[in-house]
Amino acid sequence: MRRTFDVEKTCPGTAARAGFITTAHGVVPTPAFMPVGSQATVKALTPDDLKDLGAAMVLCNAYHLYLRPGDDVVGDLGGLHRFMGWDGPILTDSGGYQVFSLASLRRVDDSGVVFRSHIDGSEHSLTPEGAVRLQQRLGADIIMVLDECPSYTRERKPVVRAMERTLRWAEKCLAAHRRRDQQLFGIVQGGVFADLRRQSAASLTSLDFPGYAIGGLCLGETKKETLAMVEETVAALPVDRPRYLMGVGSPEDLVENVDRGVDLFDSALPTRTARNGALFTGGGRVNISRAEFKSLDRAIDAGCDCYTCRGFSAAYLHHLFRSRELLAYRLATIHNLRFIMRLMERIRTAIVEGGYAEFRREFLAGYRTTDEDVRLAQKQRWLERSARVRDEGHCPEDPGVVA
Amino acid sequence: MRRTFDVEKTCPGTAARAGFITTAHGVVPTPAFMPVGSQATVKALTPDDLKDLGAAMVLCNAYHLYLRPGDDVVGDLGGLHRFMGWDGPILTDSGGYQVFSLASLRRVDDSGVVFRSHIDGSEHSLTPEGAVRLQQRLGADIIMVLDECPSYTRERKPVVRAMERTLRWAEKCLAAHRRRDQQLFGIVQGGVFADLRRQSAASLTSLDFPGYAIGGLCLGETKKETLAMVEETVAALPVDRPRYLMGVGSPEDLVENVDRGVDLFDSALPTRTARNGALFTGGGRVNISRAEFKSLDRAIDAGCDCYTCRGFSAAYLHHLFRSRELLAYRLATIHNLRFIMRLMERIRTAIVEGGYAEFRREFLAGYRTTDEDVRLAQKQRWLERSARVRDEGHCPEDPGVVA
Repeated sequence: MRRTFDVEKTCPGTAARAGFITTAHGVVPTPAFMPVGSQATVKALTPDDLKDLGAAMVLCNAYHLYLRPGDDVVGDLGGLHRFMGWDGPILTDSGGYQVFSLASLRRVDDSGVVFRSHIDGSEHSLTPEGAVRLQQRLGADIIMVLDECPSYTRERKPVVRAMERTLRWAEKCLAAHRRRDQQLFGIVQGGVFADLRRQSAASLTSLDFPGYAIGGLCLGETKKETLAMVEETVAALPVDRPRYLMGVGSPEDLVENVDRGVDLFDSALPTRTARNGALFTGGGRVNISRAEFKSLDRAIDAGCDCYTCRGFSAAYLHHLFRSRELLAYRLATIHNLRFIMRLMERIRTAIVEGGYAEFRREFLAGYRTTDEDVRLAQKQRWLERSARVRDEGHCPEDPGVVA
Repeated sequence: MRRTFDVEKTCPGTAARAGFITTAHGVVPTPAFMPVGSQATVKALTPDDLKDLGAAMVLCNAYHLYLRPGDDVVGDLGGLHRFMGWDGPILTDSGGYQVFSLASLRRVDDSGVVFRSHIDGSEHSLTPEGAVRLQQRLGADIIMVLDECPSYTRERKPVVRAMERTLRWAEKCLAAHRRRDQQLFGIVQGGVFADLRRQSAASLTSLDFPGYAIGGLCLGETKKETLAMVEETVAALPVDRPRYLMGVGSPEDLVENVDRGVDLFDSALPTRTARNGALFTGGGRVNISRAEFKSLDRAIDAGCDCYTCRGFSAAYLHHLFRSRELLAYRLATIHNLRFIMRLMERIRTAIVEGGYAEFRREFLAGYRTTDEDVRLAQKQRWLERSARVRDEGHCPEDPGVVA
């Protein structure tokens, strides 16, 4: 297998490292954050916007694209890059997580899953081999194995079962994978059980994937548990392969998990919160709809170099949100993503210069994080909403603007 | 009064003319179409987008901005140009039309109107002098007198009354106007009565405005009536002042009214229909959500040079609309507005080259216009929707996406 990951530097006193992932559509400097474009579009942004704010790789979702417009349509149109007008690196998630969270699950066994579409209730099946073929048709640069992703639980039995099945599926995915221009990543499961995490990582490592994802976290466990599981998993993964923590994207979580040796992240959080008017600043998240911003004649974040902060006052953004104007969502998304991109740039520089421990300390001292209780309550609402969606047949990502 | 309008050329055999309106923020080549940004934003677009697609002047609405965020807020932030980040020419409508259509009207007499906000039902009053002061605080380059704009009717009496009141209000507006960097335009009323149109135009002309608008049309009368009234009005207006037909913006209507000597237009139609997936092409309007576009691997309009047509297939746009993705509204708006801007550029070139009659004939032969009955039914639904909004307190412009 050709070499696709290089570690440039590991920061003394931390597990943080700077590197490069080489793909068929370009090189991704790591640690990197991928904006989420489930349906072949990062909500409210064009590919040019993404370039401008410094995104290196975007994430799309095979589950969403299989259902609509169909992987056959995307394939016939020349693949995902051409379809969405993005010529940089793309990673597709296999859809495992979505099948187990968004869709209505009918049956799961070693051969695969049968589920009902969240869009129209139609029945579909997905096998490990089918998930690879689907992602080969879409044509992303990095694709993911199909994994069984159980809900958060303190019960050991369902987690063991899902972990073991994910491993068997990983073998099948690897055997089915044909496109040499794509990298297939394995996914570590194991819930909040340290020994299961280590076992999953070791078994997957023996299959020799070009990269490994850490799945099944941030699903309701405490932040302390998340970090502990990341530490266990990273310790059991090879140093010469990139480590991708799925679904993580708050500024404080990025900083903490880079510290533990994670190289790659994705999350809808920066873009979803942006559409709700929650904007990142150096001091923490602020809600732009609050009255205090009505007449504020300065950028929302003094230190920001994004298009939004360069051209518009907090008062104008406040007005757009209060008036529910479409431009609000675009300007807010640009700002939040640029905030994250700039954070990743600063993180990488600190690692290369050997000062990551200090950077982390300083960032966390200045950034007021969302209270743990509030955070878990928000997460719970979001998961319940997904469950409702599953039952009622709407997609929470669908309207673009999520209340 | 300094000269602010120059006619470059009038096309032989037609009343079509090419000219320039000079404003404090730049020169507007005419005939010109103004994109509508009622709430200080053209829905889904940034000022950069507007520049890129060739817009010279945008329209904002004093009624909307008075209610939210307030003309005091906009004034304190340095005026409308700075507030919305647009340094080109701006025209504000006085809000007369909105008070009579969108708001819930409480009382109208010669001193002004008392109305209830469509946003929260709060009571407000607007006088002719107040409308000018309000627009002075907003700071647009061209501002409009307060006019009484009655609904479409074949009854003569209410139209006479509104026309006469509009004239008295025009005198008061002129007397109240102070800012020398702004041009105040008069508004001709008179419904579908030729003699009233002539009388209104003649009386206003005697007040010597730097420009004249034709108001109170496209409110439910037939297209034939609209054109007849425009002809009557234009004949009674001075040749050395720009003529602005309010609320007109379909491609065929632009072509027909330029032919009759109109210089300036505004309409929410190109942007509103874009958000509904109705896209202009050289052959007429198409609905991008229709199944025929699902796999179409070419731009929606072969002849178009817009960002959308240069970068994305009809199939991708179809997917974005079917998925209700926010990017759909932006890409569609860019296309429809660029279509109109390109049309205006071609119109102007044809006039300057002396071939407008032929251009008009060729364009109308190739462009399938919306059927008259369909058009009137659509208009009726829109007006009824506005009335419902008035009663229920929602604004049809509010959600950005209008069904």
